[in-house]
Parts: sequence; C-alpha cells; structure tokens
Amino acid sequence: MRIIVIGGDAAGMSAAAQARKRRKADDLEVIAFERGEFTSYSACGIPYWIGGLVDGPDALIARNPAAFAESGITVHTGHEVTGIDLSARTVTVRSADREFSEGFDELVYAAGAVPVRPKWAAGPMRGVFGMQTLGDGAAVEAWIAETSPKNAVVIGAGYIGVEMAEALLRRGLSVTLVEQSPQPMSTIDPDMGALVAKSIEGMGITLRTGVTVQSLESRSPASGSSASGSSASGSLASGSSASGSDRIGAVVTDAGTLPADLVILGLGVRPNTELAKAAGIPLGATGGLATDLRQRVTGPSGLVEGVWAAGDCTQVLNRVSGRQVHVPLGTHANKQGRVAGINLGGGYATFPGIIGTGITKICDLEVARTGLSSKEADTAGYRYVTATVSSTNRAGYMPGADPMTVKVIAEKESGLLLGAQIVGKAEAAKRIDAFAVAVWNRMTVTEMTALDLGYAPPFAPVWDPVLIAARKADEAL
Amino acid sequence: MRIIVIGGDAAGMSAAAQARKRRKADDLEVIAFERGEFTSYSACGIPYWIGGLVDGPDALIARNPAAFAESGITVHTGHEVTGIDLSARTVTVRSADREFSEGFDELVYAAGAVPVRPKWAAGPMRGVFGMQTLGDGAAVEAWIAETSPKNAVVIGAGYIGVEMAEALLRRGLSVTLVEQSPQPMSTIDPDMGALVAKSIEGMGITLRTGVTVQSLESRSPASGSSASGSSASGSLASGSSASGSDRIGAVVTDAGTLPADLVILGLGVRPNTELAKAAGIPLGATGGLATDLRQRVTGPSGLVEGVWAAGDCTQVLNRVSGRQVHVPLGTHANKQGRVAGINLGGGYATFPGIIGTGITKICDLEVARTGLSSKEADTAGYRYVTATVSSTNRAGYMPGADPMTVKVIAEKESGLLLGAQIVGKAEAAKRIDAFAVAVWNRMTVTEMTALDLGYAPPFAPVWDPVLIAARKADEAL
Repeated sequence: MRIIVIGGDAAGMSAAAQARKRRKADDLEVIAFERGEFTSYSACGIPYWIGGLVDGPDALIARNPAAFAESGITVHTGHEVTGIDLSARTVTVRSADREFSEGFDELVYAAGAVPVRPKWAAGPMRGVFGMQTLGDGAAVEAWIAETSPKNAVVIGAGYIGVEMAEALLRRGLSVTLVEQSPQPMSTIDPDMGALVAKSIEGMGITLRTGVTVQSLESRSPASGSSASGSSASGSLASGSSASGSDRIGAVVTDAGTLPADLVILGLGVRPNTELAKAAGIPLGATGGLATDLRQRVTGPSGLVEGVWAAGDCTQVLNRVSGRQVHVPLGTHANKQGRVAGINLGGGYATFPGIIGTGITKICDLEVARTGLSSKEADTAGYRYVTATVSSTNRAGYMPGADPMTVKVIAEKESGLLLGAQIVGKAEAAKRIDAFAVAVWNRMTVTEMTALDLGYAPPFAPVWDPVLIAARKADEAL
Repeated sequence: MRIIVIGGDAAGMSAAAQARKRRKADDLEVIAFERGEFTSYSACGIPYWIGGLVDGPDALIARNPAAFAESGITVHTGHEVTGIDLSARTVTVRSADREFSEGFDELVYAAGAVPVRPKWAAGPMRGVFGMQTLGDGAAVEAWIAETSPKNAVVIGAGYIGVEMAEALLRRGLSVTLVEQSPQPMSTIDPDMGALVAKSIEGMGITLRTGVTVQSLESRSPASGSSASGSSASGSLASGSSASGSDRIGAVVTDAGTLPADLVILGLGVRPNTELAKAAGIPLGATGGLATDLRQRVTGPSGLVEGVWAAGDCTQVLNRVSGRQVHVPLGTHANKQGRVAGINLGGGYATFPGIIGTGITKICDLEVARTGLSSKEADTAGYRYVTATVSSTNRAGYMPGADPMTVKVIAEKESGLLLGAQIVGKAEAAKRIDAFAVAVWNRMTVTEMTALDLGYAPPFAPVWDPVLIAARKADEAL
C-alpha cells in the first residue's frame, strides 16, 4: 500500500509517522510532498525567532527529511502537488526541474492554510509579509538584515499580530499595531480586550484600534519617496521573494497614513483547499475539508474513498457551540494528524473536536480563553450570565503576586460553563487549562466551586482564581 | 438564633461569614471562640514568613476580629471552649481571667488539627516546634531572634517539612531533613520521590531518608553540653512557651546523633476532636468528625442535631478511592466552612469530597499530585497501569524551557485516570489542575489525549506534558 501525503508540516507528518509506526516497510510505503523548504516545524515559534529569543530556523524544526527517511518515510521538499486525480488515484507533482505523476492508495491532504490577503495587499510589494510558514519567517529575517527597517506596521491584533508586534519591538523597531475592531484580541470579550489594550499601550507599541487599512503605498528605492503601488495581481508571494516589485513605504488607513518599511499581515488564514476543490473533493461550509471522527474526508454523499485530511485545511467541530469552525492551530493539527495516521495504520482513534482554547503572551502580559466568548455564545444561541473577578496568581502576600482578571460565561438556566477568559501576568494564562477540562466535561459552575485544585501560597490564593470566578458565576445564576 | 463557632480560622470563620451574609442581624447572632491569638490566617504561609519572604504575621491574616465585628460577627480570641453540653445546648468557655457558659442553637465545630507528637517529642523542650498555628510561627521567629540557632533539624519530609527546610535554609541555618520513609514526599510514588530527593540534595539541605528518630536530647543552657532530656508528660506546648524546660541540643536517630538547636516537627497532624468526643459527639473512623454533604455532623445513628463541622477536624470523602480520609488543607477548610455557612444561612450547598490534590515548592523545585498514588490505588483495590514521561514546561526551543516529569496512573481495564504526579521547575506543578479536573470528571486517559489545552510556545510544547503523559498511559493500557 502507498500513502501519499500532501504537506510536510505537523498534520501530514504526524499522520505519516503514526501510519509508518504501525505497519511494516514491505506492507506500506509513505511519500510526502512539501512545496516549501522545511518539514514538521513550529510556525508558532516564528515570532520568537524574529524577536531574537530563539535561534531559527533550525531550532523550530522538529524533524527534517533525513530523520524521516531513517524511519522509512520519504519526504520531497520543494515539491508541490498541483493536481489530484481521484479516479486514476494519482497526484501530479511539480518540482524546480520536473513534473511527474505518482500513484496512491490512500491520500492524506494536509496542505495547511494560507494567509488572508485583502485586495489592498494582493499585489507584490517588498517588505510586506504574511506569517504562516518558516519561509515567511526567513523572509522577514532577511528583510530586516538587508534593509534595517525602522517603522513596522502590524495589521491585525490577533494572536500572530500581537506576538509579531512584540517580536519587532524586541528587535528595536518602532511598532504600530493596527486593528479594525475596537479592541485587540477580538476573540475575547470587549471588557477583557480593553485590559489587553491598556497593557499593550504601556509596552511601547502604538496600538490603533477601530482603524481600517485602505492601501499600501510603495516608495521608489532610489528616492525613498512614497507612491501608490498596490495592484491586484492575486499573487500570494511573500514580500522579499517579489524582488522586482515595489518596496513598502506606508500604510494608508481611514485614520491617516502610517510610515512603514516593514509590514506584517496578521489578518488570519484560510484553509488551503484549492487543490482539493479542483479535484472535486467537497469542501465544508467554512471552506475547510470536512472529515468524520477518524479524519476521513466526507461530503454530502458520504465518505470520499481513500482520502484523509488533517490540520489547518480542515474544519473541526466546536463541542460547545455544536458548529463546524476553522481553527488553524498546531496543537489541533498534530492531534488530527496522529488520529489519521493511527487509523491509516490499522488502529482506531478519533478526534472529537475542539473547544476553542487559545493562549498568548505579549511581553509580560498573558491572555487566554477557552470555550465560547460572549459573542460566540450569542451566535450559538445560548442564554448566559457572565462573572468577572480580580484575583492574584499567588497568595496575595507572596512576593511575585500579580493581579489577574478572570471572566466566566455560564448558561443561565443550567449553570453549564460555556467559556472562560484570563488576562494577567506570569502564571495566569495557563490556568485556562482547568477551565478547558471543565468545559470539555460539561461542568456547571456550581460544581466547579468544589474542584480540588492545587493550593499552596506560591501557586494560588487559598481560593484559586478559577474557583473565585466559578463562585461568582454561581452567584450570578 | 445563635450560632456558636469553635475555632476562628478558615473553616469556622468562613461558616460564620456565609451564614451572616444570608441572615439579618436581628434574626441571627454569630459568636466565635478562638483559643489562639489570631483569626482567619494562612497557616500555609508560615514557611514563607519564617523564610523571610513575607512580613508576618500580619500579612498572613485575612481578617481580624475587628473586621469581623464590623460585619456583625463576634470573635473572642484567647477564649478556649472546654466543654460542650449537647442537651443543655451550651458550651463552656475559658479565657485568661474567667470561665463562663454560652448557649447556642447551632454549633459549628471547627477546632482544626493538632500536630502529631510522637512519644519522644511529648515532653516540653525549648527549641522544638510543631507547625500548625500562627502562634507556632511566632514562636519559631522568637526562638531564632533570641538564640541565633545554627543547626536545624526538620523531622518529616512531607509538605510542611520540605517547606520549613527551605525556609530555615533561607535564614542561613544549616538544615538536616530527616525522614523515616525511604523517600521525601511519601505522598508521591517512590520513583517521583527519588527525583525530589536528588533535587533537595543539590539545594544545600542535608536529606536523611530511612532514618528513625529515637529521642530528643537537651543541653544544659550554661554548659552547652547535651543530656538526655525527653520526658513523656503529654504536653503539646510549643517550644518557646515551655520556657522553664530544657533546651534542645540534639536529635538522636537510629543512624546517629544530629546536633540541633532548632527542631521542627513535620510529622503531620491529627483532627482536634477531643472536645467533641468528650461531649459524646461520634467520630469517624479516621478520628475526624464525619459529616453529611452539607457539613452536618453525622454518626452511626444519624445526624447530630444542630451540630456542624468543617475543616481540619473533619474527615472527607476521597472521590477516587471511595474512602473517608483526613486531609487537613486550607483550601478544603475554606470550602467546607463556606458550605456549612450557606446551609446555616438558609441556603443550599454541598461539599462533594476531595481528590487528593497537593502541591508544593522547595526552592526552585515544584512538586504536585492529584488523585491516587500507586500505593493508594493498591489500597483502594484498583488494578492499574502507570506511565511516566519527560517533557518541558515550554516549547523546548524557548528560553526558560525546563524539564519536567509527569507520571499518570490509570485503571487497567477502563483507562480511567486515577492519579497524576508532577516534578519539575517553574510552570510545572500547577499543570496538576488539568489532571485534577480530569480526575474529578472521571475521564479516561484515552479521552484525555484529545483535550484542547492552551498551546503557545511560551506555555507548552505543541503536545502539552499533560497530553504526552495521557498518550503514554493510553498506549500502556
């Protein structure tokens, strides 16, 4: 049997490794094609590389093609799959010097996601970067080394946006963070987002919320002056690879023009499913591939025979809202890939969905969420109460005790915990895991007040912030 | 209605506060008697006070009698309840200058626990201290100030023992930690305890395991020489209060004599239930008071009318083993007191038991456990598998990534998570909460592999140590 894997990052290579582990070499051949240069890397680590905290890119690579080869998995980097023929059971592959066709018995589609590029960023412009692959990170590194930029504009204040803002600040750039919503981190509630906004402003990052970007302006390399330069060619190339094109000079917004010699697009990503679509593989409502619990691709008329999918190109079930959502996150990609691989290898495993846990750090500020935000709870149709408490990470009398704010959302009638959000400093955000396990198990906030969590003065007040929040939500019911 | 509360610490005063909150002043009178000097304090904070990290004792007091008075609760410190008459519904109270009787409608028994003092420590000996009350902390502080001790021996390497060993090390003493078991922290498995032992030895604390203390030797104040001096008078007085007695000179063990001018007894505590017993209130099998879910005292023949109990004087249900156990811990005391108080105030709340979560820090080492240890699982009758993994607190490539070891215990047939243990450095131990919520909800390790925990490089590897441990246990099934 031959398995072809499209995409050599977390999801694809986890699937490959798990399948390989379970079947003998003479029984199974595993070949992966990766259009980029790297395999199995931590894209989430890119901001720490750019920020100078990590020596990249090597440290971010969990396993390279040579290591895969040793365990009997063939990976071709610089090889892009350009076509899938489901009837013939072949893929068409293009590399720098040739195009060829390869047959498969089972196909693992793990092509990841691609950065959203609005119309105003569609054209090639040097110094403008999406943040999705290790290649993007390398391009930013090269740009900084070559051009010594002074003014960075990060567009979008979600996870990648805030992390890149910190990274560029660490590199000594003047950083402006632009966000269309009235708050940064729009995945948390406005009141919690306001706490984040306040903190970001104290960090030396210029935060501009409620601001819409209208265009990118180039400057001519010779004169250094700006000129309108965005086109709509539809290219998705990263800044530095478009070496013949114009160079970024400014970001034009509805609230003025921001000088910029480096722009990061942190506007989210969409599932990279063009190839699947072209092959007639049905897509889910989110644009991602829909799978069953074992990561087999499904469509309106049932399973797509012998086609599996995992990672950022798929949609997943949010267990709290009951909705299919697109949540591109390495931790889900790894789990889904593992599940696909176990099943491909003859075992049994399922991926039961996600609950929307997210966590990030901006300088010394920690932010986390799980379950549904108030807005998401509204959309899902829940009637709910919220409770917000201020507490500390350690017993208040301990050195290093820092304030933290915890917000809890619970269904009004049942008391069911729907979601939680945390904004604090050290030792604050990872407390989201206690909430995450509680959400996963459909606990009520009333039951949560009795939870036996770790207590000692260096770790928590005698009432852990998690419990205080549950108590307040219980009282609000 | 009048409520009398025996014991002015966490459990008693939580009960008082909650009852008060729910009923009007003309409807309810709340009077608490505390034999010590302080109310509502953090006994768990004493090691940090002694260690010089916290300004004690004031910082450790959450609420003093004046504050309680303001909210309509009368607290008499320095007042010991010496008798309970259930038929007459009165308590006898003794203070420095008088003895009197006070009637009650409802009685809250929250007399806490008293340190275990083996026969060899039963006699008065200056410089020997149990660690249970703020008064004990003050006595140690005074002893250090008065006598400038050089050699401390801490007997018992459980939570209090290791925390006090660190505290005295911080104060510049030479510290020997003596433990009868073959390992420190005997509440965790031997292999995990061995990791703790190794770390403690690197901290400058002399750890002596498998060593049994035989007697305490005094030295005559004038000559400074040692003389056998332990008697068996049965006194429970702390060292410095026995001012006329001998002064500690050495600890005699089956493996030699250890010079000591300060000794801490960290041998655990037992429920302080003599008074209840004398009044004919039935005790549970552990020696603690048995209660129903609402914290009403129960006996073989049913409820003891109008008597409530909470905190270290009670026994509690371990939800995993199904056994009644004595787990003296501030966090349980607070919860039980709150539950008693809500019910006393006319509300409804239950305390559904504990799962054995514990956490501590020794210098930069963090240790935590939840659920059952292997030994406890054996005792409970479980057949189980264990899995131990090494991982890191952050993504391995991040600065500050430290190793941590996680052990998971799961029922062999069902995969039910029975317990977990963690030994690591910063950001390690509080991960026990994710396990604790999983144990609470009777998750299987198989289901745990899919948990949606917070992932970002500053907080976890892409597979959180919790998930890696669950995976390995799943594979071991």
